[in-house]
Amino acid sequence: MHESSLERLIHLLAKLPGLGPRSARRAALHMIKYRESVMQPLSEAIRVTADSIKICSECGNLDSMSPCHICSSSRRDTATLCVVEEVGDLWAIERSNIFTGLYIVLGGTLSALDGRGPNDLNIAKLLEKAANAEVAEVILATNATVDGQTTAHYITERLKDCNVKVSRLAYGIPIGGELDYLDDGTLGAALRARQPF
Amino acid sequence: MHESSLERLIHLLAKLPGLGPRSARRAALHMIKYRESVMQPLSEAIRVTADSIKICSECGNLDSMSPCHICSSSRRDTATLCVVEEVGDLWAIERSNIFTGLYIVLGGTLSALDGRGPNDLNIAKLLEKAANAEVAEVILATNATVDGQTTAHYITERLKDCNVKVSRLAYGIPIGGELDYLDDGTLGAALRARQPF
Repeated sequence: MHESSLERLIHLLAKLPGLGPRSARRAALHMIKYRESVMQPLSEAIRVTADSIKICSECGNLDSMSPCHICSSSRRDTATLCVVEEVGDLWAIERSNIFTGLYIVLGGTLSALDGRGPNDLNIAKLLEKAANAEVAEVILATNATVDGQTTAHYITERLKDCNVKVSRLAYGIPIGGELDYLDDGTLGAALRARQPF
Repeated sequence: MHESSLERLIHLLAKLPGLGPRSARRAALHMIKYRESVMQPLSEAIRVTADSIKICSECGNLDSMSPCHICSSSRRDTATLCVVEEVGDLWAIERSNIFTGLYIVLGGTLSALDGRGPNDLNIAKLLEKAANAEVAEVILATNATVDGQTTAHYITERLKDCNVKVSRLAYGIPIGGELDYLDDGTLGAALRARQPF
């Protein structure tokens, strides 16, 4: 049978991460119910974003301009570089409102399993920036996974000849976390990194 | 600050049922990563569906034509009407490939709390169809909730003067269900409706 436009829409929605066939159907029905307020604006927003989004030539962020708003801001601290795996990680750190430096988005991690080597990541750009005398510190904010930590170690090695301080995010108990529900690794790391009270 | 096209897209995605801010961000990043294969087709599919979708004048189904494919098919059994609350319920029954009759989509349930009375539902159409001599059975497939069952009872009352058999879906153990995890109500209903083996 010929696939109707509605079936095609549901099929495409179901491909998005976090949505399956059932939630895609619900989302499609919701859209149709709110055609003016949800469906038409959403179609428009996807089209506009697809046309306008750029990858920042400096850090790898996604923005409507390149260099992005962060790299071209005069209010950012250019002495600190934060290395993240993906754009979503950059956004997460920005939401914390703590970090005022610049970023490098690696575009993933080193991975023997998936065959990703240093040349597949944004490491050349990082080394180029770290070699700049202005840069004093590189913060490694890769994930606390095996691949993330392997990548962090590799980058530390590569940065040895640059005159920069290399740091990583602290391990510990998440705010609001209950000890009884924490995995042993986190609890051990929090114990070892205990601080005066 | 001016909302960027990307922020607007995430904001709109987060309004869909089943998506929150975090999954909307992930969905947006996924779209941008697969601009050709996901993002552009999706924008197009939403636009085409918004332009072409119609509510079937006969049953309330959503389709690209009205009457819908089901109501205008010559292969459906016109002697059986199935009453469902929402279009999603109609789709669920169609997926089971068991039912060959026609539908009436009520558009919700009676609800004292939400102030929905009989005139807010598609009940007039149901009575009109049920009065047709051709119709022999009306299957009430409303949800097994208080509102769904109230609505089913109300409809049964209204159909009393029509010469039709009124039935409802069987209650029982879901296929693959484990007794230990079932609620007492379902287990009780399944016991009362036990059948010869």
